[in-house]
Amino acid sequence: MPVGTLASVKGVSQDVLEDLGVEILLSNTYHLFLRPGVETVRRMGGLHRFMSWDCAILTDSGGFQVFSLTDLRKVSEEGVAFRSHLDGSSHFLSPEKAMEAQIGLGADIIMAFDECTEYPADAARARASMELTVRWAERSKNYFEEHKHEVPWALKESAELRSAGRSRAAVPTRSEATQALFGIVQGGMDPELRRESADRTIDIGFPGYAIGGLSVGEPRELTREIVLSTLEHLPSDQPRYLMGVGTPDEIAQYAQSGVDMMDCVLPTRAARHGLLFTSEGKVSIKQARYAQDENALDPICDCRVCQRYSRAYLRHLYASNELLAQVLNTVHNLHFYLATMRTVRAWIRAGHAPAAGASQM
Amino acid sequence: MPVGTLASVKGVSQDVLEDLGVEILLSNTYHLFLRPGVETVRRMGGLHRFMSWDCAILTDSGGFQVFSLTDLRKVSEEGVAFRSHLDGSSHFLSPEKAMEAQIGLGADIIMAFDECTEYPADAARARASMELTVRWAERSKNYFEEHKHEVPWALKESAELRSAGRSRAAVPTRSEATQALFGIVQGGMDPELRRESADRTIDIGFPGYAIGGLSVGEPRELTREIVLSTLEHLPSDQPRYLMGVGTPDEIAQYAQSGVDMMDCVLPTRAARHGLLFTSEGKVSIKQARYAQDENALDPICDCRVCQRYSRAYLRHLYASNELLAQVLNTVHNLHFYLATMRTVRAWIRAGHAPAAGASQM
Repeated sequence: MPVGTLASVKGVSQDVLEDLGVEILLSNTYHLFLRPGVETVRRMGGLHRFMSWDCAILTDSGGFQVFSLTDLRKVSEEGVAFRSHLDGSSHFLSPEKAMEAQIGLGADIIMAFDECTEYPADAARARASMELTVRWAERSKNYFEEHKHEVPWALKESAELRSAGRSRAAVPTRSEATQALFGIVQGGMDPELRRESADRTIDIGFPGYAIGGLSVGEPRELTREIVLSTLEHLPSDQPRYLMGVGTPDEIAQYAQSGVDMMDCVLPTRAARHGLLFTSEGKVSIKQARYAQDENALDPICDCRVCQRYSRAYLRHLYASNELLAQVLNTVHNLHFYLATMRTVRAWIRAGHAPAAGASQM
Repeated sequence: MPVGTLASVKGVSQDVLEDLGVEILLSNTYHLFLRPGVETVRRMGGLHRFMSWDCAILTDSGGFQVFSLTDLRKVSEEGVAFRSHLDGSSHFLSPEKAMEAQIGLGADIIMAFDECTEYPADAARARASMELTVRWAERSKNYFEEHKHEVPWALKESAELRSAGRSRAAVPTRSEATQALFGIVQGGMDPELRRESADRTIDIGFPGYAIGGLSVGEPRELTREIVLSTLEHLPSDQPRYLMGVGTPDEIAQYAQSGVDMMDCVLPTRAARHGLLFTSEGKVSIKQARYAQDENALDPICDCRVCQRYSRAYLRHLYASNELLAQVLNTVHNLHFYLATMRTVRAWIRAGHAPAAGASQM
């Protein structure tokens, strides 16, 4: 899932995302909560209509971003008080507030409000944090079940049908559909705590489960251990979502290990810093060695950037701080990630055993 | 002509420019001279190949930009010594150097090296400056005539033909075509000096003529007077190019008065500052009044931005400093300018007398 923090994948217009074959975007509740505000998006009919995007959208709960505001937040049983990174204004997010916000934003998949345990954390802290996340998952689900019909597209379509004089009974509508709320497994770096978190989150019951609290500073090998051990405790017939991962190699490995969904800012953020992923490895396009290189960025890539422009031109755009550098670099990196996932899907369909496939990467 | 200063219209990819119907771009010799350097563009086969743009390109001579570096330049009969606005490095441009640079860049239309007379200027200064421009026009043409076959696409195509074993005699090629060098009329704000500049530039002989030295701080009415009086002295069967103009109203007026070509950074620069041109007048999209405005930016515009996004979304992107704001705003403003010119062409073809048409605007 490419990341569109503020209801936009930075620099890339929605028609280009469609051409790239993007099927689902992630957008950040914390950022949208501050700008343009949930109420504005709700009044505009929800995120899909606001940003003119007909494919799927997932919003995070805001929890991860709020916990990143180390010096600006205070956690209690009730929720998290925090100050905006933009203007220092005071806000509060709780499971109920995070659900209210995500229902107002109207993504297709929304996430329970969790506490992302810091790394490192001692055993007592990791357990307390995991237990808080379980209680918050329950509160998230309770609020969601009571309010899920308030999603803006449901209201909008009902109103349209009423004004068209058709009864809801006669025409089955999207207004009867609701968002999907996923639970999040925490538990720090302890496989046993992770197992317990998975079991207790499954007991609450969600249509999909995420593995959170990773990529918070731990070694890559530890991330991998925790992901693989946690996956075993999650139902394989429901979506399993690994949050905030990773490099092209990592997403291929994890997909083959059974992860169904991932999101990462890496392809888009790296692109804006001139770091490009290619079949021949990473290319730092700012380097002078590319100044007169007439070759395509990636000789076997069929994206619109590699098909049209040379490394020399991309290097010039980046070195000259041209806006188009960020646009073209982002398009290429997104294509590379999406093509990587298409390849992995083909491997899986062709019957490669996920575990063997993963260890071969 | 949209402006693509550094071989890129800021934020807009070449395929979108093609979709917009852009037929010719202006690029700036001064900026390309500094980054990536003429030699790099020449080795890459010239601007068209470097930026992957098959339609026409015009380069200015660098004169206007160098003269804008008020404190960093020194003018002599020979040319202009100046310091780079980027790093303070010393450079020199003369008619010969400006031709060499523009031949190396390989645009379709290139401009004689002129002195842009400052405003205000007394009679003696305006005459001396005009006479210098005439002498430089002669030197520009002399250098061009001697070196015009050095344009990189001519060399490239000759080499390709030779390597394909075909003789130049058998296959007529672009290598026999050369760039078109236009002369520039100066003369400050004195219609009589302008007439003399036009006559003497025509005597040197060019395939097209530009009116330079306007939009340098003089009142708009004076610009208009000088343009109209100068146009009378330029051959109407050759392209007449008014440099650095203007607002949508102005380009429509001047086109109907007989101007064939114009360039201006206004549509692209204003877009990046959130100022949008519409059929209902200018819109400053940053204003809070648009925060929940579901309407298209311009209700009668058929550009891809107005067809897809609301004012609320465009306002959000701009207020949140999203890259996509600059991209979409630029696409809309370029479309507005190009549509304005298409309308003017239709009026002209329909037989509206240019003078009457202009006075009705």
